[in-house]
Amino acid sequence: MITVAAAERLINDHTLELESELVSLVHAGGRVLKETIRADRDFPPFNRVTMDGIAINFDHWKQGGADFLIQGTQAAGSPPLKIDSSNCAVEVMTGAVLPEGADTIIPYEVIEISGESNRRATLQVVPKKGQNVHMQGTDRLEGATIIKPWTILGAPEIGVAATVGKSTLKVVKPPLVAIIATGDELVAVDQTPLPHQIRSSNAATLADALHRWKIEPDLFHIVDDLNGTTDKLAGLLEKYHILILSGGVSMGKFDYVPQALEQLQVTRHFHKIRQRPGKPFWFGSHKSGTVVFAFPGNPVSSFMCFNRYLKPWLSKLFKLHKPPLMAQLTEDLHFEPDLTYFAQVKVELDQGSILAQPVVGHGSGDLANLVDADGFLELPGGKNHFSKGELYPLYSYRNLRS
Amino acid sequence: MITVAAAERLINDHTLELESELVSLVHAGGRVLKETIRADRDFPPFNRVTMDGIAINFDHWKQGGADFLIQGTQAAGSPPLKIDSSNCAVEVMTGAVLPEGADTIIPYEVIEISGESNRRATLQVVPKKGQNVHMQGTDRLEGATIIKPWTILGAPEIGVAATVGKSTLKVVKPPLVAIIATGDELVAVDQTPLPHQIRSSNAATLADALHRWKIEPDLFHIVDDLNGTTDKLAGLLEKYHILILSGGVSMGKFDYVPQALEQLQVTRHFHKIRQRPGKPFWFGSHKSGTVVFAFPGNPVSSFMCFNRYLKPWLSKLFKLHKPPLMAQLTEDLHFEPDLTYFAQVKVELDQGSILAQPVVGHGSGDLANLVDADGFLELPGGKNHFSKGELYPLYSYRNLRS
Repeated sequence: MITVAAAERLINDHTLELESELVSLVHAGGRVLKETIRADRDFPPFNRVTMDGIAINFDHWKQGGADFLIQGTQAAGSPPLKIDSSNCAVEVMTGAVLPEGADTIIPYEVIEISGESNRRATLQVVPKKGQNVHMQGTDRLEGATIIKPWTILGAPEIGVAATVGKSTLKVVKPPLVAIIATGDELVAVDQTPLPHQIRSSNAATLADALHRWKIEPDLFHIVDDLNGTTDKLAGLLEKYHILILSGGVSMGKFDYVPQALEQLQVTRHFHKIRQRPGKPFWFGSHKSGTVVFAFPGNPVSSFMCFNRYLKPWLSKLFKLHKPPLMAQLTEDLHFEPDLTYFAQVKVELDQGSILAQPVVGHGSGDLANLVDADGFLELPGGKNHFSKGELYPLYSYRNLRS
Repeated sequence: MITVAAAERLINDHTLELESELVSLVHAGGRVLKETIRADRDFPPFNRVTMDGIAINFDHWKQGGADFLIQGTQAAGSPPLKIDSSNCAVEVMTGAVLPEGADTIIPYEVIEISGESNRRATLQVVPKKGQNVHMQGTDRLEGATIIKPWTILGAPEIGVAATVGKSTLKVVKPPLVAIIATGDELVAVDQTPLPHQIRSSNAATLADALHRWKIEPDLFHIVDDLNGTTDKLAGLLEKYHILILSGGVSMGKFDYVPQALEQLQVTRHFHKIRQRPGKPFWFGSHKSGTVVFAFPGNPVSSFMCFNRYLKPWLSKLFKLHKPPLMAQLTEDLHFEPDLTYFAQVKVELDQGSILAQPVVGHGSGDLANLVDADGFLELPGGKNHFSKGELYPLYSYRNLRS
């Protein structure tokens, strides 16, 4: 048995090269960018009017003139007009190009307009030279990097990509993943189990959790039979980048997964971790590059191992890894065995703090309990008492609100 | 002009009834449940073995017997065997039904097995009656509610639905939404703009942000023309539950949106909020039930209004609303005008705290800046100085890590 930290290191010794693919802009949200998005022209691309009002030449006002002859109107989306002489002004709309010869915008709110055929504007305030003009290139210059590769594409990034004309984007192609539920006791979701059977649920849980990476795993079920297990896994090792197994890794007589994997020359890097739940986790890799995560079959165990080990490892593949959040324990907690204990917790974000409230369950078989919690708090081995207010790493499976 | 709080109240006076639809389990992740998920049988459905080892009758041990005759093996997924007499044991595997006549499981780790044809097991520890058995119904009883309606379906909920045999689920049907970008200056993403034009980007940003609700909005563009605007909006008011406009709501001569909406009997509930950015936001509703959010055209303004007003309102429709997170300002900030100021911030989750670090931009036209930030911190009017360490409501557009 190895420690949690050693298991994490052994997993991190393995990586996969992720390929790229092109997606249309409307389907790019949530994907991870694999190119650099640059400004195709200056941001803004011209001296841009930011208020509705009149465009003037500041020097005229400076020389004592508060009255301007309005010579025309300049809408957004029209080529720029030219101010004929310094006492002239052009009505301008937000988003328009600054007229030639003008340098300052006076909003409608602080001018008075008079006259019919020869309309004039009178300033009612002291203007500041250059006000209400968003000067060309002040945000970004043409060619500047705006979005770096390995950025997850959220709404602002989609907007920037639209602005620079990227109607298709190069993004990370998700790895091919197979999830294999093992066990004679499992029947399909749409079947009615006999009294001693249960429906397969871990595969559905893990498949859903992989959607955050846009991974669409293929799901399989194998029964507890060594030859059948070996044959099936041989084929899957050829085709997939990652195999995730659930069940068949304990001390039971029909736990054939480690034996089958070793027969197939999958190198075992560890089997069993000093943790609860999830002790029997088996991890290995194949010379083809396929990485194998064989989780215990208990639903809480398999989901805990996914969140603690596979999720951070996938984050690293997508170059989005961050250290775990630290959360404050809201009450004292005692755990006797000298193992790392992953306590189920509800997470509360309150008054600027991240709080973790332990949720009492009935052990690693209690999958209904996962619904009532938000994540796992990692309480290290080597101590038994964990005090209210102490900070521990949080592995949450909920979005902590955006 | 009204306050931010008044605008929020006026928006919250409106609601929409959301319909239901059926989706398959594999596509249900992230959807909002609209039925009750109950235990179809007890959880666990039988007295379930939780360790590989032998099943014994505790009374035999209590009466002095540490030796048991192994009479058979009971795999997971097999009907239960029956212990013939109190000195007999059955080898049992994790997930198996507890054999009849047994009440206690002794793990392989703490027994010694001897013999060939008549195999015997000797206990090496003091067992506890009932150990390593997950008793039928201890987690949930048949018929108990496990997931309530209006729950967002994450991985644990998908697992529970699989367990109870729900291969299709009744979920909230997203409302029909149209996003209408207005302005003569806008060209499509795949077009090359003239020097005085820009590509349409707000619609792409807002469309992506709506995906979190599985809303697939239809996108439109209308030019600055009163009759054209009125005609187009008349058709959209008939068909959609929510219209989101961007641009055309300021004081400009070609800002026809308020006029067109009022001609179409869309009741204006407010126009202009005492805030920066996003002052010209116009909000109304039509007797058909359609709700109209007409945001300013500046990209930072429209996205800020989306995050501060439309997103919480949508959360309420889906009955998922929570009060905004409070985040700690990391440095002093000064803002002179007596308006609510939505400061762009980067969010850092550090040592159990939620920190908001102001990001300096170039005003409401600076859409590249949205990429560098994570959300808006709401700094109220009536004061000009905001001090490091103070808590303010955060409207984040990033997932705060799960």
